[in-house]
Amino acid sequence: MKFSPLVDELIKSLQCLPGVGPRSAQRMAFHLLERDRNGGGKLGDSVSRAMSEVGHCQQCRTFTEQELCQICSNPKRTESGQLCVVESPADLLAIESAGQYSGQYFVLMGHLSPLDGIGPDDIGLDRLETTLSEGEWREIILATNPTVEGEATAQYIADIAHDCDVKVTRIAHGVPVGGELEYVDGTTLALSFSGRTAV
Amino acid sequence: MKFSPLVDELIKSLQCLPGVGPRSAQRMAFHLLERDRNGGGKLGDSVSRAMSEVGHCQQCRTFTEQELCQICSNPKRTESGQLCVVESPADLLAIESAGQYSGQYFVLMGHLSPLDGIGPDDIGLDRLETTLSEGEWREIILATNPTVEGEATAQYIADIAHDCDVKVTRIAHGVPVGGELEYVDGTTLALSFSGRTAV
Ligand SMILES: [Zn+2]
Ligand SMILES: [Zn+2]
Repeated sequence: MKFSPLVDELIKSLQCLPGVGPRSAQRMAFHLLERDRNGGGKLGDSVSRAMSEVGHCQQCRTFTEQELCQICSNPKRTESGQLCVVESPADLLAIESAGQYSGQYFVLMGHLSPLDGIGPDDIGLDRLETTLSEGEWREIILATNPTVEGEATAQYIADIAHDCDVKVTRIAHGVPVGGELEYVDGTTLALSFSGRTAV
Repeated sequence: MKFSPLVDELIKSLQCLPGVGPRSAQRMAFHLLERDRNGGGKLGDSVSRAMSEVGHCQQCRTFTEQELCQICSNPKRTESGQLCVVESPADLLAIESAGQYSGQYFVLMGHLSPLDGIGPDDIGLDRLETTLSEGEWREIILATNPTVEGEATAQYIADIAHDCDVKVTRIAHGVPVGGELEYVDGTTLALSFSGRTAV
């Protein structure tokens, strides 16, 4: 034990955050204790609530504490008959911020990665197949990351869509190859949407 | 609103941590939600408990959820009649790790900084004066940081101690001038303790 039991526990638990080691966890703990009890109180509360209440949208799989997320529960979003497949909620946000797209989403929460044991069912492709075969879709837009895994995942989904007789497109390579989609600026993302090509 | 209300709140509240901006807060939130619900649950719990339960030791002012910290409640610590004054709990830990010192501590939780409006009472020097005048002290060791503010604070405390007829020492300049005490290695700290000089 280094400090009091509760302070030690605080420093240890902060290290579950990515990029936070023992030294910065200690700095964070002392900052909260010395200078921001109020912010720390809110942090504790919102972390606890988020961990226990936030689940996945029943339709698109993104994070939400409701049954359906805000996009899926918006009837205007179904009008276009478009479904955009992304890897993560951050990618969804990047596309929303670009302002080019007004259809629905499907969030994989990852990508195919056989070496890590992540197969089709782990990223919801069984549910996507049901969604595609049961709905009336005009177009599926594949907006997975332009990485090896993202391209492989896109190809896998394209095959499913073809089997379901749904038109599939892939966002154009306006986005830098090898990069992460969530860091691309809105203009580039908008360009990549308008320049999308049939798969 | 970017994600769901609870997720947005989580991302916002994580930014009260030092060095955490919107982008890394988002990455932390998704990491907890996707990959470490268990760690996140413990984090929320320990932050909440620490914010509401951790206070200051009634004697030395360090952080503790008890009335007296582990060091102050250890009778062996009073035998030497030594009191070491440090700026922060991290400095106390650094000195404890060096293994040279076995007396008591007084933790200022800061240093004198007139420009920031931090005066003697804000760092507990009123209580330190009472402690010095009421106790039987063989030696006060000043282990504030070797910075301009730390030296000024040490000088201020030396004057108080002289008024109380208590012997005062300052840790030797084995610690690099201009540096932060908590980052100094144990050997250097031990040297600086054994080489301390009368003020
Ligand atoms: Zn949804
Ligand atoms: Zn104490």
